[in-house]
Amino acid sequence: MKVMTFSHYKEVTEEILKDSYAIVIDLLRATSTMIWAISNGANVIIPVENILEAKLFKKLNESVLLGGERGGLKIEGFDLDNSPLSYKKEVVFGKAIVMTTTNGTRALKKASFAKRIFLGSFINAKKTAEYILKEALKDDMQKIAIVCAGTEKKFTLEDILCAGYFADIFKTCLEKIEVDDLSLASYELYKKFENDPHEILKYSYHYNHLKKLGFEADLEFCLKKDFVDCVCEYKNLVVEKV
Amino acid sequence: MKVMTFSHYKEVTEEILKDSYAIVIDLLRATSTMIWAISNGANVIIPVENILEAKLFKKLNESVLLGGERGGLKIEGFDLDNSPLSYKKEVVFGKAIVMTTTNGTRALKKASFAKRIFLGSFINAKKTAEYILKEALKDDMQKIAIVCAGTEKKFTLEDILCAGYFADIFKTCLEKIEVDDLSLASYELYKKFENDPHEILKYSYHYNHLKKLGFEADLEFCLKKDFVDCVCEYKNLVVEKV
Repeated sequence: MKVMTFSHYKEVTEEILKDSYAIVIDLLRATSTMIWAISNGANVIIPVENILEAKLFKKLNESVLLGGERGGLKIEGFDLDNSPLSYKKEVVFGKAIVMTTTNGTRALKKASFAKRIFLGSFINAKKTAEYILKEALKDDMQKIAIVCAGTEKKFTLEDILCAGYFADIFKTCLEKIEVDDLSLASYELYKKFENDPHEILKYSYHYNHLKKLGFEADLEFCLKKDFVDCVCEYKNLVVEKV
Repeated sequence: MKVMTFSHYKEVTEEILKDSYAIVIDLLRATSTMIWAISNGANVIIPVENILEAKLFKKLNESVLLGGERGGLKIEGFDLDNSPLSYKKEVVFGKAIVMTTTNGTRALKKASFAKRIFLGSFINAKKTAEYILKEALKDDMQKIAIVCAGTEKKFTLEDILCAGYFADIFKTCLEKIEVDDLSLASYELYKKFENDPHEILKYSYHYNHLKKLGFEADLEFCLKKDFVDCVCEYKNLVVEKV
């Protein structure tokens, strides 16, 4: 099995992904939020690239919820922001949610070249990694691409730490695993800060941006590991539980 | 002072670099080799992008030496490969050398948007970093961009470790330094493997590629720190000692 990591979704192409499974990570906060919404009983999440598109869905069906952010904050006229803590069971159960975020939803679309696309986050990494390995074995799939969403145009540390956790789980589960340089670097960074990722993230860009906006509770939430049981897949333009 | 790191030269643009000093790193082996050649008395190095261009220089002036690689190996008709160990004093002293390599020479050209461009390697990192800080102070320059050449299209671990060493020196010399996420990650990775970078690089792509080609001695050479005193600058299309 070969594991490749990409620090930004703009780096991936059809050529790279066509024979792979992909894991898309936008740890703070899009993929964490989507996974938590699905885990709380949302039926389906429809990621869209822009606000107009989201509003069109609402016009077509008033029962959908609109969620997402621009600049980390709730979009005017939307029902929900991009904080996982807003996606409580009483709000999302049985609902369809249309989401648009700066990087996460775009990363999912770009990853669509892959044979199957899964959502990654610390909150359900182990379940997701184990499911992917089981399916890859059945499917004779030899390549897994970890696609970090990145922030704006840049390398984003929290996504890389989460990618490193996936590499760690794959290394533990598989006897033979080939990793590219960024998977190797992510793994080593993750292991260095495994017990307290805040210790390094407190110096990082996006983590601090969210902290300044008052989302400390989200940071705590998104960095906790494996308290969610469901695995989420992006397929036919929507995110659902597998 | 703000330090930004880029994992591949293709990521940098005029917009990013125009108010910066740049350090270009192609540790294995282009920048290490150029620095060593200059340190051994080569007058000037002219980096060019392709083989034809290099051969044209030789036609114009037979005394120039042609150096470089494709696929890690010497180019047919060239005087020298890309191994620093080939650039001995008795070969290069007083000479002009035209070089073309897969990533390093292209990275230098791409970095030309910066106000000044320096060559980086472990072999002269401390001298280079200290010189840059001194000049930046005089010049009121607030941004340093570390531009890793990368291998093919990807993140390359040895360049990142060297970038981390530069970040380490900058942190030591300056009271206040702002780092982006990749500088922070590079610094932490470097510190983890500071005493033996081979320990992680033995799992990395390009290091192993060169090992298979028989260049073990180059790997040892390029990973030794600070035994070279000169600082090399790329200016008006050539590399010279500052």
